[in-house]
Amino acid sequence: MIVAISQLNLKIADFEANTQKIIDQIELVKAQGGNLAIFPELVVGGLAALDFWKFSAFLQSVDTAVQEIISHCSIDCILGVPYLDTQTGSLFNAALFIQNREIKSIAKKSLLRNGGEMPEAAYFAAGLGAEMIDSHGFNILLSVGEDYTTFEEQDTDLIISLNSVPFSYLEHDRKLKALREYAKKSRSALIEVNQVGAHGSLIFDGRSIIIDEERSFQDELNAFSEDLRLYQLVGSEIKPLQQKQKEISYSEPALIYQGLVLGIRDYFVKNGFKKALVGFSGGLDSALVGALACEALGAENVKGILMPSMYSTDHSLKDAIDLATNLGCEYEIVPIKEGFDVFVKMLEPVFKGTAEDVTEQNIQARVRAVILMAISNKQGYIVLNTSNKSEAAMGYGTLYGDLIGSLSVLGDVYKTQVVEIAKYINREREIIPVNTIVKPPSAELVPGQKDSDSLPIYDVLDPILFQLIEKGLSGQQVINLGFDETEVKRIEQIMSKVGFKLFQTPPALRVSPRAFGSGFQLPLVARFTSS
Amino acid sequence: MIVAISQLNLKIADFEANTQKIIDQIELVKAQGGNLAIFPELVVGGLAALDFWKFSAFLQSVDTAVQEIISHCSIDCILGVPYLDTQTGSLFNAALFIQNREIKSIAKKSLLRNGGEMPEAAYFAAGLGAEMIDSHGFNILLSVGEDYTTFEEQDTDLIISLNSVPFSYLEHDRKLKALREYAKKSRSALIEVNQVGAHGSLIFDGRSIIIDEERSFQDELNAFSEDLRLYQLVGSEIKPLQQKQKEISYSEPALIYQGLVLGIRDYFVKNGFKKALVGFSGGLDSALVGALACEALGAENVKGILMPSMYSTDHSLKDAIDLATNLGCEYEIVPIKEGFDVFVKMLEPVFKGTAEDVTEQNIQARVRAVILMAISNKQGYIVLNTSNKSEAAMGYGTLYGDLIGSLSVLGDVYKTQVVEIAKYINREREIIPVNTIVKPPSAELVPGQKDSDSLPIYDVLDPILFQLIEKGLSGQQVINLGFDETEVKRIEQIMSKVGFKLFQTPPALRVSPRAFGSGFQLPLVARFTSS
Repeated sequence: MIVAISQLNLKIADFEANTQKIIDQIELVKAQGGNLAIFPELVVGGLAALDFWKFSAFLQSVDTAVQEIISHCSIDCILGVPYLDTQTGSLFNAALFIQNREIKSIAKKSLLRNGGEMPEAAYFAAGLGAEMIDSHGFNILLSVGEDYTTFEEQDTDLIISLNSVPFSYLEHDRKLKALREYAKKSRSALIEVNQVGAHGSLIFDGRSIIIDEERSFQDELNAFSEDLRLYQLVGSEIKPLQQKQKEISYSEPALIYQGLVLGIRDYFVKNGFKKALVGFSGGLDSALVGALACEALGAENVKGILMPSMYSTDHSLKDAIDLATNLGCEYEIVPIKEGFDVFVKMLEPVFKGTAEDVTEQNIQARVRAVILMAISNKQGYIVLNTSNKSEAAMGYGTLYGDLIGSLSVLGDVYKTQVVEIAKYINREREIIPVNTIVKPPSAELVPGQKDSDSLPIYDVLDPILFQLIEKGLSGQQVINLGFDETEVKRIEQIMSKVGFKLFQTPPALRVSPRAFGSGFQLPLVARFTSS
Repeated sequence: MIVAISQLNLKIADFEANTQKIIDQIELVKAQGGNLAIFPELVVGGLAALDFWKFSAFLQSVDTAVQEIISHCSIDCILGVPYLDTQTGSLFNAALFIQNREIKSIAKKSLLRNGGEMPEAAYFAAGLGAEMIDSHGFNILLSVGEDYTTFEEQDTDLIISLNSVPFSYLEHDRKLKALREYAKKSRSALIEVNQVGAHGSLIFDGRSIIIDEERSFQDELNAFSEDLRLYQLVGSEIKPLQQKQKEISYSEPALIYQGLVLGIRDYFVKNGFKKALVGFSGGLDSALVGALACEALGAENVKGILMPSMYSTDHSLKDAIDLATNLGCEYEIVPIKEGFDVFVKMLEPVFKGTAEDVTEQNIQARVRAVILMAISNKQGYIVLNTSNKSEAAMGYGTLYGDLIGSLSVLGDVYKTQVVEIAKYINREREIIPVNTIVKPPSAELVPGQKDSDSLPIYDVLDPILFQLIEKGLSGQQVINLGFDETEVKRIEQIMSKVGFKLFQTPPALRVSPRAFGSGFQLPLVARFTSS
């Protein structure tokens, strides 16, 4: 029989458009001779719909959509849905098996994810797990998430798992390794269907996986875009109907680059926004955000604002203009000295001749924020935030200053990764001015300032942050791994005070296993002990 | 025997201070002849420690603290702790029963809370629930949370439940009613021990409950402050050792008032902050925040900043000065016209003679934010946010403008409640100028502006918001209750677009059953359907 995997990009709660898209896919599968069409987890209503799942109006719309889709199921279909048991009132994360326009089986997810980006257990009841189904004489184990791993071995031709795991640059390799091991152990062929698309912070990268370990066959659907692909099932052997795509190797910067482009594009498209505004400082972070925005939205929809201060170096302005020229996007120059001076004057009676300190640096950053937001308000642009994860962890940035924006593009990307992605973008021609990449990072808020005056250099900082955040180790454990004790303690000390800033920064596109925000939550008020 | 309830206010993860405080309480109970000292849920390490619970260093500190406390337990003790089963690696929300300096029983919480403010299931494994213990010959059922409700009936003299439920103005009455019904049904005496104190957004109000329904005895510990109280147990009868405190009636505004004062005070004390800065507009929200801050921190630690614009009315400045005078706090006047004018001038080349719109209103709000933050930076004040829940729901406020601050004091308080609390504060003498209470609310960003120009009047808005948010009803359900269809649909429409602003507003003190933020999470990117 012929099995079709439909890897769709849908908008949460947009029932009308989503239902039509699913029905169109079913018709397409029929036209290509498919016998079974498989759709992703929670394809109806959307993944991470959160409190929508508590609204009866939402669940009624799910029901209407499912009935509408079922009426088109003249072939077998597998559909991820939030399934309400009307007798008990329990809601399940379920996969429907539809045959002859009827629901034949319901696999209700048992191993629910808790907390983090996908707080399933807060919304769904735990079901009984995977179910055996029969499609065209084949014994198929139907599972949501990893329920199949706890199913008693039976005579199974194929395991189908609807499993949407948020993208991180480490996730696909981890998942593939685990699936191959399971396939080897269980001697079953395996199809894992993923989502594609971004919903605010959460990105899904597609790359649905097909494994037939017995015959060393392995395939995957498109990365970062929709896909529909058909396979022939003969016994427990899976054969592709199309030519197997050539092996693609994804480096870490290439993966993050594509994830961020998809994240920006879906944030704009799904919100009905069009144009992005970026403050171009001449530095690397804003240059990368500008390049990513141009790729995602088209250079004609991106505008850079250059806001030199009395402390900006000449090369900063030149680098920023070079960038806009290379990208082909519009830019405007609004110097900030006048704005800065007037605040100093207005505040003179209050400050009464006190010495300059960080206050004056923050005023510069906040004057820039007022300018960006004014242009955003007046001309309908959405401001993209340009600060990175290394800065976020160190609280290096001005709240209501450079930390503004609707979406943080690099908030989950370390500075050392920013450099690698910039080099990746420049792999064929210079898009980001080389001078921007090689010069020492500086906020340019006082003459001659460098990031390394107040932070460890990024080559030292980032690997330690990775151990503390992504690996979740304590400071002592990181020191035990051989990292420098003084630096680790200094970093822990600085990190212990950033909760207040992190709470108010824009949502960041998540590309690591542990982003600030939902992936890493510390209490706002606590004593942070280092031991 | 004599049972002591110790209702403590502790700081998350401050092991040294907390351990000493617990040991001091044990000594005090001993000195007063007590036989059993009961401490709250997760008293070691703190409630809502979140990702701290994943740090091995944190769990080691818990272990050290527990050993230290046990060594002082020459009387029986009940202690709420995160309990790590070192064999399985599972972490439980547990109550230890300590007798003769040994752990005799461990009640591991079974009914874990999911999601919302207290995402227990994300961190704790589900235990086997309540345990029977024997203290001085009494049969006591020891429970964490509501586990006792699923325990098979036995010969029980007393149920002790460590159960910390975040404060809301509706919570205590709900809890008391449920406990009385259970006590009647089960014919058991019941002690429910609560926390007191605030941890960022979360407030706990104390009021630990003692019920002996058979003898119509009912008592509670202090509201919003620490308390230690002793009771005599004779058979299954509970008798107070001290005089029963006189019946206190808590009105809704009085409860919210006390909750907010505790919330502000603990946020400052536990963070090591001292001084608060509030923008005094002459309006009611900022006046109430000023009054609450003076009550929490002392008027000598509060400074009001008056920032009149060209559109501010004379009465606004006078009302704000009257307020500062009544409160006895310092104030300064920094007019914003110069700042506003310079931005208009700087942006002229970009805006090229376009008409005035909301941009210019937002610039005023953002100039005020720059001034507040500059004074905060220079003089070490913490800025308190002054916007309310009605405005938050309607997106009425300027991001990086009046929506700034470290802590939102009124973010979970509707405007109609703001009025009631102001009247409660004025119950003995005029503290908040009466003119501030009775004049129509206005942002004063254009001449003659009133909130009611762009929002439904608050008497109409707030009851509808309560149904949509606190009651979680859909728009149609609210209309079915008899609310005006046009207004409900207009409100739903406006609310569907505020997610972006809500994401970046400061953490708000939680006083309702459903605060924005952790209590009510909608996806950032979705189609919001009204049906």
